[in-house]
Amino acid sequence: MAAVDVPVALLGYGTVGSAVHRLVEESADEIERSTGHRLRIARALVRDPARERQFTADGGVLTDDFAAIRDDASIKVVAEVMGGLEPAGDYVLELLRSGRSVVTANKQLVARRGSELFRAAAEGGVQLRFEASVCAAIPVIKLLRESLIVTNVHRVLGIVNGTTNFILSEMEAGRSYGDALAEAQRLGFAEADPTDDVGGFDAAAKTAILATVAFGSRVPLEWVEVDGIAGVTLDHISAARALEMHVKLIGRATIVGDRVDVRVGPALVDRRHPLAAVDGAFNAVMLQGDAIREITLEGPGAGGMETASAVVADMVSIVGTTGTGFLQNDPVWRELDRLPAGELPSPYYLRLAVEDRAGVLARIAHELAREGISVARLVQQPADGNAVLHVVTHEAPAGRVGAALAAIRALGESRGEASALPVVSDRGVEELGWA
Amino acid sequence: MAAVDVPVALLGYGTVGSAVHRLVEESADEIERSTGHRLRIARALVRDPARERQFTADGGVLTDDFAAIRDDASIKVVAEVMGGLEPAGDYVLELLRSGRSVVTANKQLVARRGSELFRAAAEGGVQLRFEASVCAAIPVIKLLRESLIVTNVHRVLGIVNGTTNFILSEMEAGRSYGDALAEAQRLGFAEADPTDDVGGFDAAAKTAILATVAFGSRVPLEWVEVDGIAGVTLDHISAARALEMHVKLIGRATIVGDRVDVRVGPALVDRRHPLAAVDGAFNAVMLQGDAIREITLEGPGAGGMETASAVVADMVSIVGTTGTGFLQNDPVWRELDRLPAGELPSPYYLRLAVEDRAGVLARIAHELAREGISVARLVQQPADGNAVLHVVTHEAPAGRVGAALAAIRALGESRGEASALPVVSDRGVEELGWA
Repeated sequence: MAAVDVPVALLGYGTVGSAVHRLVEESADEIERSTGHRLRIARALVRDPARERQFTADGGVLTDDFAAIRDDASIKVVAEVMGGLEPAGDYVLELLRSGRSVVTANKQLVARRGSELFRAAAEGGVQLRFEASVCAAIPVIKLLRESLIVTNVHRVLGIVNGTTNFILSEMEAGRSYGDALAEAQRLGFAEADPTDDVGGFDAAAKTAILATVAFGSRVPLEWVEVDGIAGVTLDHISAARALEMHVKLIGRATIVGDRVDVRVGPALVDRRHPLAAVDGAFNAVMLQGDAIREITLEGPGAGGMETASAVVADMVSIVGTTGTGFLQNDPVWRELDRLPAGELPSPYYLRLAVEDRAGVLARIAHELAREGISVARLVQQPADGNAVLHVVTHEAPAGRVGAALAAIRALGESRGEASALPVVSDRGVEELGWA
Repeated sequence: MAAVDVPVALLGYGTVGSAVHRLVEESADEIERSTGHRLRIARALVRDPARERQFTADGGVLTDDFAAIRDDASIKVVAEVMGGLEPAGDYVLELLRSGRSVVTANKQLVARRGSELFRAAAEGGVQLRFEASVCAAIPVIKLLRESLIVTNVHRVLGIVNGTTNFILSEMEAGRSYGDALAEAQRLGFAEADPTDDVGGFDAAAKTAILATVAFGSRVPLEWVEVDGIAGVTLDHISAARALEMHVKLIGRATIVGDRVDVRVGPALVDRRHPLAAVDGAFNAVMLQGDAIREITLEGPGAGGMETASAVVADMVSIVGTTGTGFLQNDPVWRELDRLPAGELPSPYYLRLAVEDRAGVLARIAHELAREGISVARLVQQPADGNAVLHVVTHEAPAGRVGAALAAIRALGESRGEASALPVVSDRGVEELGWA
């Protein structure tokens, strides 16, 4: 059986684009063996075709003219690896409308314009794949769309930003937030302006995409409650250690009835939880569903070659499935509402600085009880003439925890700090030790 | 677009078969939404159609006549969930030859007759899928065959038997091997005759399948070096704890040049390694490759519903891809040789009982040096008038470690025990503590 020649085009030829080119050339035989199709990079859109590149493209491949790709009828598959919302978004839309299947590594594009792009793909009878937009080479999108269709996934928990995970790992090793951030910047894990990572916005886009695919319902980026790691202190780290837990930036999507809650923020993760061992710049996603109980995927969440590997896998899936309709239809999305922000229950770790005298504990306990929050564990430590209370609660809605904290802060005995972090644990919170 | 009606048949209707039926009925809408095909269980082969079942089948579905399935031309997809080598193997072969795609959950069948079955599928132009044969709902086969085609996976490490992992977890909690095994039997994790699990044979079949798919080369079951957990003692467990490691039954497949090494046996796993946190009856597989570095998947490795979920996902993949050739061809397998058993290098933990007197350490060190084995860490503990030496070595070939142990056992100063376990660690062995 002679292989089908498949000319494909790239939008962008930077780190990821040139790695895609290299993988496609090096793996052409394996791809042909698996699919009967031979991929070939025919065109790559760049700003300046004369510039020198990491992986040399043959003469004539590089072009600065989008029309050279759009108007080349032989090109049926295009990978968008240029990044940014514009012009990438309009290019992708135009390609889908003209009958080309598109692979994109662009999480902001999928999170912000996904609805429009999926509709265009459905109308054009083509595929839009985006594995590389979430956690690089970890194939969580493919699993959700193809392996877990019948499992009714109801919860997704993830460490989906390597930069913040690296910073938190460094803080656990004793560095300050500032030093850890500087080290991340030195190693190239963090940008000069780290806001997108440390503010939780990168994780928010990925978590919105995961929720959309897992629940089969559009979850707009604006629905995601976002909190970054700038507020995490070494006190949180050492309290976590004493509880045999780790501080992680967790993206969490939950379906409650026909409503959805999606949030990103720091959380305490029990040492025995599969997400606890995810160190440094790695990512991991846990999917919980009826038939599967839970499946966790872990791996590198970034990197040019890792991202390129996911882009090529998507191109392979397209050439291997074109014509059958397998997972290429825009599904009939479910209509789910957003769960009001305060309603999602979780166990919490509370850290309360208070005056160290008789009766204070009773006042605190009273405020918690007023909000219906029950205490699983409590440790009091002296601190500079005052005391710090470490409290682990049973499950309580976020809104009630917030209300209790506000009430505690207003007490005359409060000495300023009254903060809360959700707790992630497979064990009951009663079993959590305090070493 | 009207859905395509797809009558499918089951061979077997026990725990997994009836769970498949239930999932197909409950998820028919979701499957149709994703693939345009509506699955329907039309026939199920059982020994006694009159017996009462867990999930009731409609009248006429159950049959004790294989010919009723074989000769029904409307049935294009069959799931084999009856287990055992015969008659399951001949049924599957006959179905593939008659143009039916087959899904199987039968690891012994795939490990022992895979070559023959894949050839029949290729010749019949149909698909043979077997996700459920390895680690139930963890979709490692799909990932290897569809997402990781271009990543050149060179190493697979897995905890692929839940029974032994449960027993080892219980032993870490202080139980003896016998008590832990009895508890596993009480909970239904282990059979009355536990040989298949504790002897490592179940893990060997799964590891052979993983190696075959990961390396694109037939790895016969006879190539797998198998060691079970019966030799693991509480002494091993406590030594592991002191080294901040866990004892796990590890399946390991490695490609070295154009040769393959596949083995199953107990190993020490560093606490920070992704496989260390896999507790109880869970399974996990780590895939290491060029472009992806490493991806780890963790989840329940057994269970009727979990296995059924993988069977249904495979049926969905078949109906979604039939006609395109996507990954349904029998690939042009590579010709790889088996690496001689002693040549695979690994760091090792050695436990040596010796006479407690001057000069013994020098004799031991001499025997290790003679085999070119270098020592990373060494701790000597007194024990009943004698001494126990705990040694962590740098990487050394298994054969040389075996030779050194034999020489040490033959020393006049030996007091009987001289055993070795491989060490799994992402860190250099120098960094491993001894708490």
